[in-house]
Amino acid sequence: MNIEVKTSQETELIDITQRVKEIVRDAGAKDGLCVIYTPHTTTGIIVNENEARLREDILSALDKAVPKGAGYQHDQIDHNAHSHLRAILLGPSVTIPIENGNLALGTWQSIFLVELDGPRKRSVHVSVHALQRI
Amino acid sequence: MNIEVKTSQETELIDITQRVKEIVRDAGAKDGLCVIYTPHTTTGIIVNENEARLREDILSALDKAVPKGAGYQHDQIDHNAHSHLRAILLGPSVTIPIENGNLALGTWQSIFLVELDGPRKRSVHVSVHALQRI
Amino acid sequence: MNIEVKTSQETELIDITQRVKEIVRDAGAKDGLCVIYTPHTTTGIIVNENEARLREDILSALDKAVPKGAGYQHDQIDHNAHSHLRAILLGPSVTIPIENGNLALGTWQSIFLVELDGPRKRSVHVSVHALQRI
Repeated sequence: MNIEVKTSQETELIDITQRVKEIVRDAGAKDGLCVIYTPHTTTGIIVNENEARLREDILSALDKAVPKGAGYQHDQIDHNAHSHLRAILLGPSVTIPIENGNLALGTWQSIFLVELDGPRKRSVHVSVHALQRI
Repeated sequence: MNIEVKTSQETELIDITQRVKEIVRDAGAKDGLCVIYTPHTTTGIIVNENEARLREDILSALDKAVPKGAGYQHDQIDHNAHSHLRAILLGPSVTIPIENGNLALGTWQSIFLVELDGPRKRSVHVSVHALQRI
Repeated sequence: MNIEVKTSQETELIDITQRVKEIVRDAGAKDGLCVIYTPHTTTGIIVNENEARLREDILSALDKAVPKGAGYQHDQIDHNAHSHLRAILLGPSVTIPIENGNLALGTWQSIFLVELDGPRKRSVHVSVHALQRI
């Protein structure tokens, strides 16, 4: 299943937890794995707390760790080297166990698509695999 | 299966390799996947060498990359924005293939829970999935 | 299956996309998961665009984020603390869904082994798991 997201900012955290939970619930898997995978090269998938000020801190930390336009070679072709580099820092996927029909998300964990070169239309793959957990 | 860990420091590397190996061995899976997943928002899971000085370097590098109390917005609510940001850098899970009954860990690889806001009680999910590897 | 790689530089991006695709194709899995896992402690696996200038930017960003020889404790034993620290930033594995017999890689995504302490012989595990996707 794909989750379609329309981002509205240059950098932005999109909470997709509820949509992932619905896909897992509809799949009806009791035990298994859920892989959330982004096919884009200027987005990332992260899991952390959805708190408004922390969301700002995350975007600021990325700005500071990999500043925009800091003399990158790739910017001569496309002005988004910083977006690619931030995506590499975050990674394109997260794998979460499914236990008794539910994602093993902790109390404070939410799943985010991180837009790093928006606004754009994005599509996130969510694949649910029913497995015998031992 | 869950691995319960009681951390004793504010930041700390806990080697959980042996406990993960025992879970994989007890599961009896010949081929499959092992997912190590932390449900906390201020811890990470990493795989690297367990060498005392390198462990110190890892914690120092995290301190330097994301300093504590560096004007984060979230610190107005809870003084641990740095812990969340470091957790996002490391990620909440690692997926390791199981081949012939053993984790495909390299000679120098150990699995660590990284405590980033301790001391606390932590619980790490280890799920073993027996699969037909092709 | 293992992909054997002989790196020729101290730090280097090796595009292994084609070889991973061949393993997935030969496995014949319609739906499933592909785990690309490096058993080394001074390499990483990343997914991003294979563009020559961006490849340089990635290596430069790693040099800058974790400089070589910056007073690390582990360097007293082995002069490669920076290689380990960079490997931890990138992570040892990526999990990619297989859909209709193909990796769910996006148009611009390539899979790279990142050499961080070469030149060396490296071996990357690629495990394909045929699963019923729901």
